Amino acid sequence: MELISLDPTNRGWLNETPTYLPPVGIGEVMRAVGLGRVVASKNLRYPEGQLVSGLLGWQEWAVIDDATMLLPVPDVPGVPLTAHLGALGTTGLTAWVGLTDIGRPQPGETVVVSAAGGAVGSVAGQIAKLRGARVVGIAGGSQKCALLTDQLHFDAAVDHRAADWRHQLEKATPDGIDVDFENVGGEIMDAVFGRLNLRARVVLCGLISAYNDAEWPPGPTNFPALLVQRVHLQGFIVLDHLDRAPAFLAEVAPLVHSAQLQSLETVIDGFEELPTAINMLFDGTNVGKLLVRLAHA
Amino acid sequence: MELISLDPTNRGWLNETPTYLPPVGIGEVMRAVGLGRVVASKNLRYPEGQLVSGLLGWQEWAVIDDATMLLPVPDVPGVPLTAHLGALGTTGLTAWVGLTDIGRPQPGETVVVSAAGGAVGSVAGQIAKLRGARVVGIAGGSQKCALLTDQLHFDAAVDHRAADWRHQLEKATPDGIDVDFENVGGEIMDAVFGRLNLRARVVLCGLISAYNDAEWPPGPTNFPALLVQRVHLQGFIVLDHLDRAPAFLAEVAPLVHSAQLQSLETVIDGFEELPTAINMLFDGTNVGKLLVRLAHA
Repeated sequence: MELISLDPTNRGWLNETPTYLPPVGIGEVMRAVGLGRVVASKNLRYPEGQLVSGLLGWQEWAVIDDATMLLPVPDVPGVPLTAHLGALGTTGLTAWVGLTDIGRPQPGETVVVSAAGGAVGSVAGQIAKLRGARVVGIAGGSQKCALLTDQLHFDAAVDHRAADWRHQLEKATPDGIDVDFENVGGEIMDAVFGRLNLRARVVLCGLISAYNDAEWPPGPTNFPALLVQRVHLQGFIVLDHLDRAPAFLAEVAPLVHSAQLQSLETVIDGFEELPTAINMLFDGTNVGKLLVRLAHA
Repeated sequence: MELISLDPTNRGWLNETPTYLPPVGIGEVMRAVGLGRVVASKNLRYPEGQLVSGLLGWQEWAVIDDATMLLPVPDVPGVPLTAHLGALGTTGLTAWVGLTDIGRPQPGETVVVSAAGGAVGSVAGQIAKLRGARVVGIAGGSQKCALLTDQLHFDAAVDHRAADWRHQLEKATPDGIDVDFENVGGEIMDAVFGRLNLRARVVLCGLISAYNDAEWPPGPTNFPALLVQRVHLQGFIVLDHLDRAPAFLAEVAPLVHSAQLQSLETVIDGFEELPTAINMLFDGTNVGKLLVRLAHA
């Protein structure tokens, strides 16, 4: 194993209630997406030395019986391994599918991305920008906000840790909001709902604000805006859309190679760091994709 | 004027906040759909004696300058005038569009309709039944529930005034819920959200439970089900879908003529009854379409 990916959705797998995958049981290997290199193989499609990704779990060596669970990953000169789990991995695919198939921003429309400094949000915002939309990112802290506008060329950023974040959101969306790429939920989503335009689209991708709560928090008070504004909301899980991976890679891989689209990653070294590192997702200390690199990598 | 239609959505037009139409100002004629007969005309398309419907308002005689605001209504032997504002009117169109274009129930799927004894719900449930779905209606009181199952042939009814309504809902939807035709909102919608199946559709048509509140109530606690179950939710207002009227009438008018689809109506006599009658929508004393018939009709 080279790299293990840490994602907000991992948290849901630890609850007793099944979500879109069965819960991880006590004593079982923690489920996670990983990137590894084949060291021994009885399958010709996956020869020794081939890079592969898949649900390899928190382990240093993975034995995979069912090769259909693996995706071969090309070694591309100039593209770091980490990008294959970042902008070119499942979180990149999530961002691309959500925007391309659900949000469908038109040039000049306003797209708001929450958790915009995260693995999905940072790619979603950059793709929306490439589609000609006005892109507003919501993130925690002035440093992340500066990164969004300066490095990723978002049109504006809203710091949800600032006391005046609601005012910042209003100022950043003078023409309302046409697409909400929703990763967070809670009061931030509620404020976004209050600014949705007629026929807005809500790409319901994640609700990280609630993943650590014992009970779901109250729902969005501005829910009726979905009716009045004739909003189209679509919940989606990337696992349903893996058939879109070729089209995604055809568009996004060249953008990453040419650095038109940046793959942000936070890489922590050491297998033993996994249980601590995952908390970074929930206190917001990671930027972009959070990865743990194994010592032998 | 022959008949004036009273609809839950009228309530929203009385708030100061614009919804999908501007608020009705103090001193203005109350806005409402009505059915009348032309008594004098300078427009050849609307000769004397022609039945017309449109936003004619709370008045005994309406002067309409812009004929594009009117729809001609055919006099059909055997079809009572009231049906033209009921199953064949805008509420019937609302039910048909919501099911045909958004909910799209497949044979054997479970459709839940809230406010199922109302003008929209009673038609929505009957159409879902004709499409081969298992149909569960939610209504207030055992009498309305009996009407749904006995007269309209719903598969089951849930009495939301009964203490055990949540249990009734569970029992009535053993295979979960594939389509929520949502007219009510609040805790009833929340309970339905908790039982949505994978790739369920929410036809967000109305939220009557909140229309009389000064502030919106808390949103749905089960909102995250929309993500986990990959739900498609679409808010819609029938005014956006008037182009679907011909297809709607082509299917539903024969069904009403042949009594395969029943147009339920509560008719109150007397123009002066309008301000009292509209309250019936909110205490649930009407069944089907609520209409006020003018004395000269």
